[in-house]
Amino acid sequence: MAKKPAWDQYSEYLCLDKILGAQAPLSDAAGHPAHDEMLFIQFHQIYEIWFKQILFELDDIQKRFSSSIVTDKDMQPILHHLSRIVSIFKHLESMIDILETMPAQSFVDFREHFGTASGFQSVQFRLIETRLGLLRDKRQPVFHCQFDENLKEESKSAIQDAEQGGSICDQLDGWLSRTPFVSLGAYSFWEEYRAAVHKMFDEKSIAARANLRGEALDKELEGLQKGRDKFDGIFDECKHAQAQASGQWRMSWKALQAALFIMIYKGEPILQGPHNLLNHIMDVDELIARWRYRHALMVQRMVGNSMGSGGSAGYGYLIQTLEKHRIFTDLFSLATYLIPTRLIPTLPDALSKEMGYGYAKSA
Amino acid sequence: MAKKPAWDQYSEYLCLDKILGAQAPLSDAAGHPAHDEMLFIQFHQIYEIWFKQILFELDDIQKRFSSSIVTDKDMQPILHHLSRIVSIFKHLESMIDILETMPAQSFVDFREHFGTASGFQSVQFRLIETRLGLLRDKRQPVFHCQFDENLKEESKSAIQDAEQGGSICDQLDGWLSRTPFVSLGAYSFWEEYRAAVHKMFDEKSIAARANLRGEALDKELEGLQKGRDKFDGIFDECKHAQAQASGQWRMSWKALQAALFIMIYKGEPILQGPHNLLNHIMDVDELIARWRYRHALMVQRMVGNSMGSGGSAGYGYLIQTLEKHRIFTDLFSLATYLIPTRLIPTLPDALSKEMGYGYAKSA
Amino acid sequence: MAKKPAWDQYSEYLCLDKILGAQAPLSDAAGHPAHDEMLFIQFHQIYEIWFKQILFELDDIQKRFSSSIVTDKDMQPILHHLSRIVSIFKHLESMIDILETMPAQSFVDFREHFGTASGFQSVQFRLIETRLGLLRDKRQPVFHCQFDENLKEESKSAIQDAEQGGSICDQLDGWLSRTPFVSLGAYSFWEEYRAAVHKMFDEKSIAARANLRGEALDKELEGLQKGRDKFDGIFDECKHAQAQASGQWRMSWKALQAALFIMIYKGEPILQGPHNLLNHIMDVDELIARWRYRHALMVQRMVGNSMGSGGSAGYGYLIQTLEKHRIFTDLFSLATYLIPTRLIPTLPDALSKEMGYGYAKSA
Amino acid sequence: MAKKPAWDQYSEYLCLDKILGAQAPLSDAAGHPAHDEMLFIQFHQIYEIWFKQILFELDDIQKRFSSSIVTDKDMQPILHHLSRIVSIFKHLESMIDILETMPAQSFVDFREHFGTASGFQSVQFRLIETRLGLLRDKRQPVFHCQFDENLKEESKSAIQDAEQGGSICDQLDGWLSRTPFVSLGAYSFWEEYRAAVHKMFDEKSIAARANLRGEALDKELEGLQKGRDKFDGIFDECKHAQAQASGQWRMSWKALQAALFIMIYKGEPILQGPHNLLNHIMDVDELIARWRYRHALMVQRMVGNSMGSGGSAGYGYLIQTLEKHRIFTDLFSLATYLIPTRLIPTLPDALSKEMGYGYAKSA
Repeated sequence: MAKKPAWDQYSEYLCLDKILGAQAPLSDAAGHPAHDEMLFIQFHQIYEIWFKQILFELDDIQKRFSSSIVTDKDMQPILHHLSRIVSIFKHLESMIDILETMPAQSFVDFREHFGTASGFQSVQFRLIETRLGLLRDKRQPVFHCQFDENLKEESKSAIQDAEQGGSICDQLDGWLSRTPFVSLGAYSFWEEYRAAVHKMFDEKSIAARANLRGEALDKELEGLQKGRDKFDGIFDECKHAQAQASGQWRMSWKALQAALFIMIYKGEPILQGPHNLLNHIMDVDELIARWRYRHALMVQRMVGNSMGSGGSAGYGYLIQTLEKHRIFTDLFSLATYLIPTRLIPTLPDALSKEMGYGYAKSA
Repeated sequence: MAKKPAWDQYSEYLCLDKILGAQAPLSDAAGHPAHDEMLFIQFHQIYEIWFKQILFELDDIQKRFSSSIVTDKDMQPILHHLSRIVSIFKHLESMIDILETMPAQSFVDFREHFGTASGFQSVQFRLIETRLGLLRDKRQPVFHCQFDENLKEESKSAIQDAEQGGSICDQLDGWLSRTPFVSLGAYSFWEEYRAAVHKMFDEKSIAARANLRGEALDKELEGLQKGRDKFDGIFDECKHAQAQASGQWRMSWKALQAALFIMIYKGEPILQGPHNLLNHIMDVDELIARWRYRHALMVQRMVGNSMGSGGSAGYGYLIQTLEKHRIFTDLFSLATYLIPTRLIPTLPDALSKEMGYGYAKSA
Repeated sequence: MAKKPAWDQYSEYLCLDKILGAQAPLSDAAGHPAHDEMLFIQFHQIYEIWFKQILFELDDIQKRFSSSIVTDKDMQPILHHLSRIVSIFKHLESMIDILETMPAQSFVDFREHFGTASGFQSVQFRLIETRLGLLRDKRQPVFHCQFDENLKEESKSAIQDAEQGGSICDQLDGWLSRTPFVSLGAYSFWEEYRAAVHKMFDEKSIAARANLRGEALDKELEGLQKGRDKFDGIFDECKHAQAQASGQWRMSWKALQAALFIMIYKGEPILQGPHNLLNHIMDVDELIARWRYRHALMVQRMVGNSMGSGGSAGYGYLIQTLEKHRIFTDLFSLATYLIPTRLIPTLPDALSKEMGYGYAKSA
Repeated sequence: MAKKPAWDQYSEYLCLDKILGAQAPLSDAAGHPAHDEMLFIQFHQIYEIWFKQILFELDDIQKRFSSSIVTDKDMQPILHHLSRIVSIFKHLESMIDILETMPAQSFVDFREHFGTASGFQSVQFRLIETRLGLLRDKRQPVFHCQFDENLKEESKSAIQDAEQGGSICDQLDGWLSRTPFVSLGAYSFWEEYRAAVHKMFDEKSIAARANLRGEALDKELEGLQKGRDKFDGIFDECKHAQAQASGQWRMSWKALQAALFIMIYKGEPILQGPHNLLNHIMDVDELIARWRYRHALMVQRMVGNSMGSGGSAGYGYLIQTLEKHRIFTDLFSLATYLIPTRLIPTLPDALSKEMGYGYAKSA
């Protein structure tokens, strides 16, 4: 590239000829130019470029997670890529501010030209959903069709490959389930934690009996019993299995233990990375949900109660996907099982050293 | 204030003694200081200050709307205050970023101390909802209680006053219904628009009959008939009355006509302000909905599936209020009744002059 | 487009083949793949698409402003497009959050491959600057070169066309200068306002003489005299001409009067649009300045004190352009010449009617 | 708190009586009520609450940094608090959107009432600056006054205590200087890195001699020599001392080495926390700078070229503080001293184990 003038280099490096020559408003072609169609086109093109970036980051994350051992040095790039994905999703949401400068009337002026094309036909976005872990049979059906029924072959196989390749959700479950420190030698996090929880409830019961009488006491004791039952629902492998079968949990029993362990002992050196990982995953889940809602409201403003562009999916459909398409709600549910810091069992010193840094181990 | 040193003036002007002396973490008092409680307190105090600002802006807007005549000079301050409210709600949403730097574990460490107090007991927020137009019987019940049952007398009466005073939603309906230009002399917007809509469907039918055959034609004609029926549902006063009775519309027939007139002829000088007004109202509606969702997700992250603080309203409740508590969805629905610009009837010249500026009238 | 499956339509409509096939990291080609180069490329491609959108909006704005008469119906689209530009620039600033997820080390790993290409060689951005009104001789020189010296012929002529076509800044000046109401029949805003200003200072002088003595009085009177002189500097055409020649003002004397008139009587129906216009222009000016600073800080983080990529313009250069490249500072300076509302002269009733709506004129 | 109705608890917990009873617009008292003064007051009160929160986080961070040993478990809360400060500063910047809904005319209507009070007299903000590390003699003077000259005694001593207590900047320098791994046993990062840098320049010289001739070669060799000199300026303790004396560097020679070590080997488990720490510190520095610029532009819009409220510091002053008041620019400058990843020396295996986790040490 040495001899060309600088601008040519810049322009060639970014392939600006292609990028800036790829906008062809249909309303112009139809002889009724609609000023705002250019925004509509470019807005969606930019979305697709960001989707490509997200998939690119997922490639590297999933490659690292798919090895039998995720090494300590993989954690830094995994966190790095995830926090970039978080940053991009934040951006995709706020970008809608720009599209909302378009009044509904402007949209009416050009939507008739593009037939059944719709922003919901983005293959890349479906790939992102699938690769994060959205299951085929959890998707809200669009007109009784499978979500990938109308895609071309190439896109269908891309989605099927993603389904078979193991999603982030599956990889995370596997990785959490292998966390060694949750149960190491004589130490069992689950036993220790269960004991602490029971002690907490015992003390609350004693306090209740000392301070309350009659109906108030009965009500309090009933509440405490419900609390105990709730915790037993996760301590017990069988009860968890039932809950999982009924769709209450998606995560495996072991993965769930490890995630709670990480949330509770997040200050231990070796758990700081995993704790950030769980937070980033929850951020992604939350941001996609927020983006869905923001998008639904924008669609409602543009087309009211009509079905969406593409004759397919309007506001009502989008609202239904809001909660149904979430993937990592288990991680949010774990907050239900935390107890005050002062009641949390102390880790055995030897375990703590294993989870600390090398230089400190022999100290 | 002339003689005091500048800083004293600044500090006194802002009553910083009161403001910065109003934080008393309960976890400190209980002997188990929890670092993050300070954030929790200050965050909610700031919310309340912003709520006060929103109510202050609503005061002036509602006073102007409550006169029998909203003058042309009222429009500028009304728009100004509304756009400030929009700006504040945007901010309330993004502020949650700061609260989400608090892990769920930190919240567990101090929430036990504040008993049943909860962010959902904000009287000011309920006042905002009521004054915008959220009706008592549209509210999602909390444990079978009226939403203001547990408030103190003073707060109850503030809410009842707001209910009786006429909400923004009612005031807007009244103001729209009085718009003179929708039907002036021989001109009737509704007649003109109905004719244009019918002409549009006639032409589509002719094109369908010319180009399609058999089942395809039947299907297309059926779709066009549905389209006609949809429009007739708003053109006809009786049908609108039925739809209103069934809860499909909240706005009156006349207000709805005027709002559509404003959306369609938004470029006419006298309609530019009203068009901005409708947009600001939709922005407020959308932003409150987004804030509710954002808030619900934050609560889910903090307390999982538990009920919310205050033993009252957790994630599940909040999600139910999301769409149910929206007030101005009628304005969004109007997008369904727009037609392409090229088919919109031209305004009579005389009417256009009345709606133009004075200097141009005699030109 | 009728027969193709929906996804093909979506993909073709957006030219996704071109858009998603336009990323070719040089570090891959060089055999040292650098993960973060993909982000760098796509980030800059998205910037260029947004620049194209801004230029597209400017096309329409400038076309409307270039007619001898800007009609009352031009105001709505002009404001609409400007507020979209504002929205895009806000977005360009916050987008840097995403690029800042790239550590400086990552940038070192691929910047050596792209020689002298640099983000500062964006022709589209230079066009935006020129079309808004940045003058060639006000630009901070880069290595003693004209800013367009190294561009290819096509780009050079695009910039020269923009220079000759009249910038937004020039068009705004012309349009403001033609505002009829500033001086209509017997009414002269300038005379009225000057009288109000002098009366204000007279009363302040009387109050000072009544309440102060000795040195304090002298100091106060001196301050008041400075205030009078400041205002006289704009009331007087000759003084303004001198100030303009010395670079203190860019706007013409008449345009400046009209802008102040609009700021003061912003509630009059006919001035509401122009007032929004001035605000949007100030928003654009402020947002470009903020974007420049944000960009400079990002560059400093990526390359420290080195010169920028492209061997050209690093952090130091960028900081110098910050204030120097601003275009509409005159509008900000006008705030200096406002007086309290209670001292503002009332408009003659006849004038007010001309500036009101047609329907009210005969009332 | 058990018996009171829930709302009373909420209201008492947040001291809403104090918080919502602390707004007393002076324009009301003066008999010329100015609607927008309420916003001005509440906006600044909210700023002060956020400042209190930032100081509260700094308290804990500085307490941890002031022990002779910062333990591995301190890192998590330090990072946590810092990322919250980052989040708050982002918010303080975007909050200005709300204040900018106030036109300059509104500000004129009430600023005359508050004499010389000004937002720049915030003692808490000065404390934040001082505690981060802004030195007294680096501050831009306001009217030849020391910045704390007009404060009351209590505030003066708070600032002087902060000055004596050791700023974050000093604490960071001390902590970095003690990093053990930079020079451990036979290993010296500085020697290894210097060798890698020299090797890089040697190879570039060889390549230049092989491929270039005459003037082009001379120019290239001259450039490479400058590069070598630049690096020698940090490798050599004496040269660094001179540069420090001349104000080019603020950080000590040892701290600077450690910071570069952290940036380069950021993937090593024990360096992930410190790397995040440096990034958070740079974020804080960048965000304060951005906030200053944003604030300056807002002041320019409100008061033009006048001096600021409080008769003190207007736009011109604020722009001067922009770069002058930055504290951590050294960390940004370090980007200048990075080399491509493929040329970075590998860490000795034994060292790597010390910096890894305990469990892996004996593996």
